Amino acid sequence: MEREEALKIVKVQLTEHRYQHTLGVMETAISLARLYGADEKKAELAAIFHDYAKFRPKEEMREIIKSQSFPQDLLEYNAELWHAPVGAYLVEKEAGITDNEVLDAIRYHTSGRPGMTLLEKIIYLADYIEPGRQFPGVDEVRELAKESLDKALIKSVQNTINFLMKKNQPVYPETFHMYNDLIKKQEA
Amino acid sequence: MEREEALKIVKVQLTEHRYQHTLGVMETAISLARLYGADEKKAELAAIFHDYAKFRPKEEMREIIKSQSFPQDLLEYNAELWHAPVGAYLVEKEAGITDNEVLDAIRYHTSGRPGMTLLEKIIYLADYIEPGRQFPGVDEVRELAKESLDKALIKSVQNTINFLMKKNQPVYPETFHMYNDLIKKQEA
Repeated sequence: MEREEALKIVKVQLTEHRYQHTLGVMETAISLARLYGADEKKAELAAIFHDYAKFRPKEEMREIIKSQSFPQDLLEYNAELWHAPVGAYLVEKEAGITDNEVLDAIRYHTSGRPGMTLLEKIIYLADYIEPGRQFPGVDEVRELAKESLDKALIKSVQNTINFLMKKNQPVYPETFHMYNDLIKKQEA
Repeated sequence: MEREEALKIVKVQLTEHRYQHTLGVMETAISLARLYGADEKKAELAAIFHDYAKFRPKEEMREIIKSQSFPQDLLEYNAELWHAPVGAYLVEKEAGITDNEVLDAIRYHTSGRPGMTLLEKIIYLADYIEPGRQFPGVDEVRELAKESLDKALIKSVQNTINFLMKKNQPVYPETFHMYNDLIKKQEA
């Protein structure tokens, strides 16, 4: 699918603010794909569709998680996590995207997981550092992203875990496992 | 077993520094047991024996973890974790302690776990805040321990996870699960 067509499909699903964020993720993902040797077209497509389900009603997302046998423990954690796997499902169903690499990059862009693919890492990170993002620590991750994808991911997932712990919120287990997996691969 | 006999058994296993720590854990555990309505004698016994295996050779601990079918993923994480389950095993075998509540409090005093018993929580926390401990944040946990065992535990496990993440070290999954479990019970 070409960029213009994909953007047109996504635009009506998002607020203007979220659409601008999506454009930022797209540009960042393409840059990272170029830098780290991933498929730029796949990075573009996954980035454009990564937040496709962001504004779906909670109840619709809950039903999809249940009926599609997604990991049911998602329902015990922050609903912010739900739009990612639900998005992967709806993007296939409604927009006809069938590339599993692209769909997985959408699916894991919020929780992360151990054993992330290059494309998954790029979308996760692009979502975290796109130019519109402003929060403490984001510039440090932007700098790290220029030298090491994994170091940038480690810092971003550490920031995320810290952020949740400061608010006394639970942390989805796959996010912890992503952290441990990246650390162990650095050690190895 | 009486205190004097237990202390005598443990003293020869430890350095003088670690023995003084053990006495601090014992006093703190007894106070916490009194405050939160746990069995003071069990708290005393578990505290005295909690570091029983601290100075066993790594190779001996590794062999026990393997031969006793303890969770094998322990071997992939920091060896600092090993003395707790190995201690529970050796305390039963060598000192004849058979009370499973006491043994579990020894077993989980470093990693923690979800669904900790009152006694397990007391030993975990006493180990963290005994008077000899000096590190950033310990006084905050000491204060919390006076009002809520779970709040003090949440803060201590958050500190531990943060400490490990700052050093780019992996975090044992049971420690993450302990954090999530305590947070979810607070929310409920």
